[in-house]
Amino acid sequence: MATKKSKILIIGGTGYIGKFVVEASAKAGHPTFILVRETTTLDPVKGQLIESFKNSGVTLVYRFLPSEFGMDVDHQNAIEPACSTFAVKVQIRRTIEAEEIPFTYVACNCFAGAFLTTLAQPGAATSPPRDKVTINGDGTPKAVFNDEHDIGTYTIKAVDDPRTLNKILYIKPPKNICSLNEVVSLWEKKIGKSIEKSYVPEEQLLKLIQESTFPMNIALAIGHSIFVKGDLTNFEIDPSFGVEATELYPDVKYTTVDEYLDRFV
Amino acid sequence: MATKKSKILIIGGTGYIGKFVVEASAKAGHPTFILVRETTTLDPVKGQLIESFKNSGVTLVYRFLPSEFGMDVDHQNAIEPACSTFAVKVQIRRTIEAEEIPFTYVACNCFAGAFLTTLAQPGAATSPPRDKVTINGDGTPKAVFNDEHDIGTYTIKAVDDPRTLNKILYIKPPKNICSLNEVVSLWEKKIGKSIEKSYVPEEQLLKLIQESTFPMNIALAIGHSIFVKGDLTNFEIDPSFGVEATELYPDVKYTTVDEYLDRFV
Repeated sequence: MATKKSKILIIGGTGYIGKFVVEASAKAGHPTFILVRETTTLDPVKGQLIESFKNSGVTLVYRFLPSEFGMDVDHQNAIEPACSTFAVKVQIRRTIEAEEIPFTYVACNCFAGAFLTTLAQPGAATSPPRDKVTINGDGTPKAVFNDEHDIGTYTIKAVDDPRTLNKILYIKPPKNICSLNEVVSLWEKKIGKSIEKSYVPEEQLLKLIQESTFPMNIALAIGHSIFVKGDLTNFEIDPSFGVEATELYPDVKYTTVDEYLDRFV
Repeated sequence: MATKKSKILIIGGTGYIGKFVVEASAKAGHPTFILVRETTTLDPVKGQLIESFKNSGVTLVYRFLPSEFGMDVDHQNAIEPACSTFAVKVQIRRTIEAEEIPFTYVACNCFAGAFLTTLAQPGAATSPPRDKVTINGDGTPKAVFNDEHDIGTYTIKAVDDPRTLNKILYIKPPKNICSLNEVVSLWEKKIGKSIEKSYVPEEQLLKLIQESTFPMNIALAIGHSIFVKGDLTNFEIDPSFGVEATELYPDVKYTTVDEYLDRFV
């Protein structure tokens, strides 16, 4: 490391002390990057500073994607303790917006590796169950399941896309919007046998959440939001706040729930 | 922006979903960077993942310097409300350490532009006062004043230096360690006249802090910590937690307090 100059990203590079750090970094020959708001480039004083940075070889970075990668925390009806967990992400969103940092929030919905591989059963599994499943609620609310590779692909496509600037990117491929009942039924067809289904009424689930400890109580409460309340699909994506990934990038051949389950047959 | 691929830095790039984002970014031809712990490269599974990232042209970034750039928040005796302000930085430090993220904390002490230009008087100024100054306490505790350019220079030197890894970098040049009395006296010599000095006893200052509102109360409480308690200089830098910038980089010709004041004469 001592012989090769590190890449340096400075957040706050036009601020009081940040500008001196940027200057020193460029002068020392480090490949130097600064995260700036595009509006800042229009400010007479800071705009001039940014011009001088560019002349020194500094690269501008314009957008921030916070580590969310779950459900849209601004459109959910989660109960505790999931509610407080989501509140942290909500708070980060409001801070980003108050600071006018250009953003894209990725609402990637259910990880297929976590939810399809297990058929949403608690705990880890390498293949969906073949004998019995427990379904919270009546299994009818629609959820969304996405292959992690596709989540990576759509996320990266969003980075430089002006259509996702200051928007929520929903990864909601039409063929991946299914209820748990539909997923289980699809799996049954693939393996050619019927699975014993035991349904947990909402009231019983709420009691179980209250009696459980961390982290099971959070997992159950998130499951309640997704599979009982239907929080992934019970609102419209309004263009004022969101865009949908498969509509923006019809060229991406995403993995469908149907195809995903094939690997386990 | 649409025609040029953005540089992308991924924090959490070996995590559950992060690795898919890294993979997609590299595949899409973005110059891709990941912040990783050096210890992670030794992990059998993640080490292999990192190797594959490197083969895909991903650049590793090993160190994080949080935006501190003030006094060392782990060695101070500040009263409220400064104490709570510092507690936020302390909390960020503990989080970084708990997560084992390689770090350097820069304790750059007093910005010369803020403290020498004003002789530590409240409010902004473009030149030190020539008629009278107010000094909190008796003016004898030693503080440290640094030119912002030097702060930038030392910070950037620290980035790739194994000696500053997981340490506090103190910028404490011998010639810049002075009491307020010494600074005022130096300034008096330079302008060839005596300045009226009014001293505020600690008890009176504490009362003033309690009666002031935000942000003046914070500024006064930080001033109390620096200039009354002497928090910048009342502890030894132990090699177990800290290193001193001018000792590490004797080749840097830093601006002394004496030279800094010359510009205002």
